[in-house]
Amino acid sequence: MSKPLVVTITGAAGQIGYALAFRIAAGELFGKNRSVELRLLDLDMEAIVKRLTGLQYELDDCAFDTLAKTVITTDTDEAFKDSDAVFLVGSRPRTQGMERRDLLGANIAIFKTQGKAINDNAKRDVKVLVVGNPVNTNCYIAIQNAPDLTKENFTAMLRLDHNRAIGLLSHKAGCHPRDIKKMTIWGNHSKSQVPDISNCEFHGKKVSGVVDGDWVSNEFIPRVKARGQEILELRGASSAGSAANAAICHMKNWYFGTPEGDWVTMGVMSDGSYGIPEGYVYGFPVVCRDGKYEIVQGLDIDDGLRTEMMRSFEEIKEEADTAKELLG
Amino acid sequence: MSKPLVVTITGAAGQIGYALAFRIAAGELFGKNRSVELRLLDLDMEAIVKRLTGLQYELDDCAFDTLAKTVITTDTDEAFKDSDAVFLVGSRPRTQGMERRDLLGANIAIFKTQGKAINDNAKRDVKVLVVGNPVNTNCYIAIQNAPDLTKENFTAMLRLDHNRAIGLLSHKAGCHPRDIKKMTIWGNHSKSQVPDISNCEFHGKKVSGVVDGDWVSNEFIPRVKARGQEILELRGASSAGSAANAAICHMKNWYFGTPEGDWVTMGVMSDGSYGIPEGYVYGFPVVCRDGKYEIVQGLDIDDGLRTEMMRSFEEIKEEADTAKELLG
Repeated sequence: MSKPLVVTITGAAGQIGYALAFRIAAGELFGKNRSVELRLLDLDMEAIVKRLTGLQYELDDCAFDTLAKTVITTDTDEAFKDSDAVFLVGSRPRTQGMERRDLLGANIAIFKTQGKAINDNAKRDVKVLVVGNPVNTNCYIAIQNAPDLTKENFTAMLRLDHNRAIGLLSHKAGCHPRDIKKMTIWGNHSKSQVPDISNCEFHGKKVSGVVDGDWVSNEFIPRVKARGQEILELRGASSAGSAANAAICHMKNWYFGTPEGDWVTMGVMSDGSYGIPEGYVYGFPVVCRDGKYEIVQGLDIDDGLRTEMMRSFEEIKEEADTAKELLG
Repeated sequence: MSKPLVVTITGAAGQIGYALAFRIAAGELFGKNRSVELRLLDLDMEAIVKRLTGLQYELDDCAFDTLAKTVITTDTDEAFKDSDAVFLVGSRPRTQGMERRDLLGANIAIFKTQGKAINDNAKRDVKVLVVGNPVNTNCYIAIQNAPDLTKENFTAMLRLDHNRAIGLLSHKAGCHPRDIKKMTIWGNHSKSQVPDISNCEFHGKKVSGVVDGDWVSNEFIPRVKARGQEILELRGASSAGSAANAAICHMKNWYFGTPEGDWVTMGVMSDGSYGIPEGYVYGFPVVCRDGKYEIVQGLDIDDGLRTEMMRSFEEIKEEADTAKELLG
């Protein structure tokens, strides 16, 4: 096998990290003929380091063909040294009653440090995917702290929303998820997100001509937005396997490209497309080729959709601007 | 894609089931060009059915290309209807201070019902892997209750011990796990198991000539046997990702064959090979071809090894004989 690709996972002692590590080690991201070196980062606390060690041992116990080495660490420089692919999973998610400034303060502490460490240590073509909420803002903070890299090195995950939307829509349309093409989730990975099926096709037909508009507005969109909560209530734990899967889908498409005739949703730095002001991390439909993403251009946006898209943008902007202010 | 293969997982609301379901749905067992229908069985209790529903929804949220359908059920007939591959994960494992008869009684209740339901409902060439402890005895109970199937339809999992042994040995030998060939775990999946590296090779050499004999006896073998406990203490939870991985490895080799020049360990009904009396589920080295396993013949067994192998057999026999008596 050729030289291993270095894959870093932060917050690796958590449930998403657990689901992600085994699948990546098994070759599900880079294929069965390319080995990986896993760097598993988490906090320097006894209970967490024990859990990380347990994960490392379990990975050893799999005797994976495609796993060259597993490093567990609490040191960001070691975690990101020569990284090819980075999953920033660990974060301080919003909890009930939490003030925005407290949320941002906690995440600045994490993503400033990690952005800088990635800047100083990772490969110059590193692909960084922010999975830890709030993803758009955390991605924004990381970019601000990685001046030697480009904004194209960083993306935020809206793929779980994207895949959830495909799953729910395929049930309604009575087809297989793989038959649904051109789903889009605009904006923020939050309740303000904008699931948009107006371009969705299945078997070459527009899905919007098949499913009922009221169902889309009153059931589908609210359910996609609230899906995380629905899973949390059923499982008594937040989405882990499906979040890890979405992260793999995202990174895989970024590396190996999107299929002809389809696109995926990624949170990327806006460039003015669709009237979304430059410089903010926003969910767009993208195609990937040769390891690079490109925002899909020329889609029709009606007035209702535009209003929703701008509402989500305002939320992103407010959070990013506060973060910028706190970053000083 | 061709007709989906039906894969049943029992105890699906637990942690091993959780790890198993996503990887199988992603095509890790039968490949990216064969779809599967998952049947997820667990107990008819509100909290468990909620967790199962959460798992089903998360699988939907992955929009897997290779997942044709997910059925959650508390009904064994529905769970095993036309099953091609079955993972019997749910069981009543031994807990401290538990009497053997109580342990066996609880598992008879589970594996008698499931053995019969498999007998009545599954495909005639179904492959059943028992993952729930005590695996050898539970597999034995299932076989007794499936008179219309053959004993070759049923196997028990010793692959986690096998993979753990390869992992630890490769660290010591300074090679990659994939370079270690011909590991064997004889006997019971319990503390009486017999890890045997006497045939192990790496890069064509005997491993026993490279690693120190004292290390093998005093560190390696005890650590393989106690690995489950080691993980439990570190993680605060038992092995899940590595157990699920071992189950996939086992089933994959059974279906698609073992690599040339290597073998794997499976718990299978003994046929008198190596002096292990017929009719008990025992860990043997096997090769698989055309969907069938065959016990590797002609290995040299020295006196020390034979003593250990018989000690483990006695434990299996005692448990199986008690189970038989309780089955009536």
